Amino acid sequence: MKIEKETPEFALINQYFKQLTTPRQDVVLGVGDDAALLQVAEDNLLVVSVDTLVSGVHFFEDVAADALGHKALAVNLSDMAAMGAEPSWATLALTLPEVDEKWIAGFCRGFAGLANRFNVSLVGGDTTRGPLSITVQIHGVVAQHQVMRRDGAQVGDDIYVTGTLGDAAQGLKLLQSAQALTAGQQTMIDRLERPQPRVEAGLALRHLAHSAIDLSDGLLADLGHILTQSGVGATLQLDQLPLSAELRAVMGDDKDWSRIVSAGDDYELCLTLPVACREAVAGVARQLSLPISRVGCIEADPGLRCFDQQGEPWHPPQLGFDHFSTS
Amino acid sequence: MKIEKETPEFALINQYFKQLTTPRQDVVLGVGDDAALLQVAEDNLLVVSVDTLVSGVHFFEDVAADALGHKALAVNLSDMAAMGAEPSWATLALTLPEVDEKWIAGFCRGFAGLANRFNVSLVGGDTTRGPLSITVQIHGVVAQHQVMRRDGAQVGDDIYVTGTLGDAAQGLKLLQSAQALTAGQQTMIDRLERPQPRVEAGLALRHLAHSAIDLSDGLLADLGHILTQSGVGATLQLDQLPLSAELRAVMGDDKDWSRIVSAGDDYELCLTLPVACREAVAGVARQLSLPISRVGCIEADPGLRCFDQQGEPWHPPQLGFDHFSTS
Repeated sequence: MKIEKETPEFALINQYFKQLTTPRQDVVLGVGDDAALLQVAEDNLLVVSVDTLVSGVHFFEDVAADALGHKALAVNLSDMAAMGAEPSWATLALTLPEVDEKWIAGFCRGFAGLANRFNVSLVGGDTTRGPLSITVQIHGVVAQHQVMRRDGAQVGDDIYVTGTLGDAAQGLKLLQSAQALTAGQQTMIDRLERPQPRVEAGLALRHLAHSAIDLSDGLLADLGHILTQSGVGATLQLDQLPLSAELRAVMGDDKDWSRIVSAGDDYELCLTLPVACREAVAGVARQLSLPISRVGCIEADPGLRCFDQQGEPWHPPQLGFDHFSTS
Repeated sequence: MKIEKETPEFALINQYFKQLTTPRQDVVLGVGDDAALLQVAEDNLLVVSVDTLVSGVHFFEDVAADALGHKALAVNLSDMAAMGAEPSWATLALTLPEVDEKWIAGFCRGFAGLANRFNVSLVGGDTTRGPLSITVQIHGVVAQHQVMRRDGAQVGDDIYVTGTLGDAAQGLKLLQSAQALTAGQQTMIDRLERPQPRVEAGLALRHLAHSAIDLSDGLLADLGHILTQSGVGATLQLDQLPLSAELRAVMGDDKDWSRIVSAGDDYELCLTLPVACREAVAGVARQLSLPISRVGCIEADPGLRCFDQQGEPWHPPQLGFDHFSTS
C-alpha cells in the first residue's frame, strides 16, 4: 500500500480510505505493510477477480464521484455473485489527475456504501498520479462443491435471469441525449451508474445452480460463454425476458429485441438450474424481493436459438460490447 | 477476465496472455470465468499486494515493452520478497491506447521471464482501452510464524540491505541526460528498468528476520516505516551503504549521501535481524551470490541518526519520492 506517505495530500487520501477498512477477523494485517495478510478458511477456495474503469471508456468524465466509487466495487461484487462466492476483501488501485478532497470524499462514500453492505474490507491499494482510472480487485471465498462456474450447464437446465434487462443501456442512451430527465428516466440512469450486484441471489442459489455468469456484455454474449464452455446449446424465449415498466413504456409495442439481448452493464445474473429447482428458485425470488425469470432452456444441440412472441425464429444482428472494436 | 471476447484484437491479446498462465496445481480455475479459483494450503496466510505503473509517471513513454512487462511484475514480486512470501498467482489489469501486436508480444515476454522464474501463474485480468497503465496484483502464501512485517524490529537488531543502492536513480538521471551510454551506464539503466526482486533472499531469511521492507521510495523513507511501525529508532553508518563499482566511479570521493539514502526504485530489501544471525546472513549472501550488507542497528531512542565516514552526524535534506508532491 503506497498511500501512507506523510505528505498532506497522502495523509488526506489515507484519512478517507480508512473508512473503507471494515474490520474483519480474517484480516491478519490490512493496509500499511508491503502486503496484506489474509486467512482463507480450510476447505474454502479463494475467488479473485479484477476490473478496471477508465474515464471516457466506462464512464463519463463528469459522473458523480460517489456513483463511480459505487460502480468500481459493484462490477467486482457482481463477479463474486456469479461464482456464488462470499465477498471478503478488496484492493484499490486509484490513478488520479489531482488530489481533490471533495471528489475523494464522494468516491469513498460510494465505495463504502457497498463495502459495508457486503462486509468487504479494503486491505490494500496503490494511489498514483495520472489519467483517471480505477482498478478494483475483489477476493471472496466459496466451498469447492458450491462454486458456480460457466462450464457446468447441463442439457435440460432452465435458464434464468435476475432483475430486468436493458435498463442500463437505455440509461446510457438518455445520458447521451442530454435532455431533462423524468423520474422514470433517472431510474434507468441509476441502473447504469449504480448497478446492484446480485450477491445475495448468488449465495442463495449456489447450492442448486449448475452454472452462472454475470451480465456485463449483454445476454447473448454472456450466455454464449456458458454454452461454449459447457459444450451445450440453448433456446431463448424473447417474450420471457424481464423488462422494467419504464423500459416497456419506452419501447412500446414494437420490441427491438436486439437492444435487449445485446445490452451491457446490467450486472444481473444469468444462471442455469435443473427443472426440479423451479419451486426453490421462486422461493428465493420471493425472499429477496427480486424477479428471477425463466427465459429458456439448455439443449444438446450447440448454438443459441431465439424465438419471438409469435414463436418465430429471430436472429441477432450483433453481439455485446467490445472495448477495442473499430466501429 | 475480459480478454476472451471473440474479436480479432482480443483473440490476439488472448493468444499472448496464454503463455503467462503457468500451470500450477493450486489453480483450480484460471482465466476464463467470472473469477479465478485458488487453493490456499491450510496454515498458510494469503499475502496480497497491488502496484500500478502509469505512463509518464513511472516510466518513459518510449520504454521497451519487455522492460515494462518485467517491471510491472517485479515491483509486485518485491513486495512478496519483503513479506517472506512465496509468490503464486498474479492478475493483470492492462489499459492500452491501441492493440499493437509487437508491443504486446514484448510486454508478455518481459512478464513471462519473471513469472516462469518464480513459478507465478496469471489467473485473471482485464484489458481495456485508454491511456497506457498497468496494474498487477500479486498473491503469495506464507506460514503465519514466518512472515516478515514492518512492525517487528527489535532493539539491538542489525539492519541489512541487499544488493546495492542508488543505481536505479543514477539510471534515471542518465536516461534524462540523453547522452550516448557506456556499458557501465547501461547497467544502471537496467537496474531502473529491470529490477531484480529479492524473492530468494526473502524466503531464505524469513525464519530469522524480525522485520523487512522493500526499498521503493528510498532507504530513509522505507526504513522510516519500520521504525515508526515498530516503535523504535536506529543508527545508520553511511559508509557501510553498499554502492556498485559503477556508482562509486560516478560519485568520486565526495559522497553525496542524500542521493543514496533518498534514491527510489532499487527494489532491494531492508531487513532487521538479531545479532546472533550474522553468520547465517553471511551464509545466505554466499549461497545467493548477493551482497547483504550490515548498515546500522535498531535502538530504543526514536528517530533515525546517520553518521558519515568521519563519524560525524549527517542530516538528510529530503525524504523519498511522492507522486503527488508539487515540487
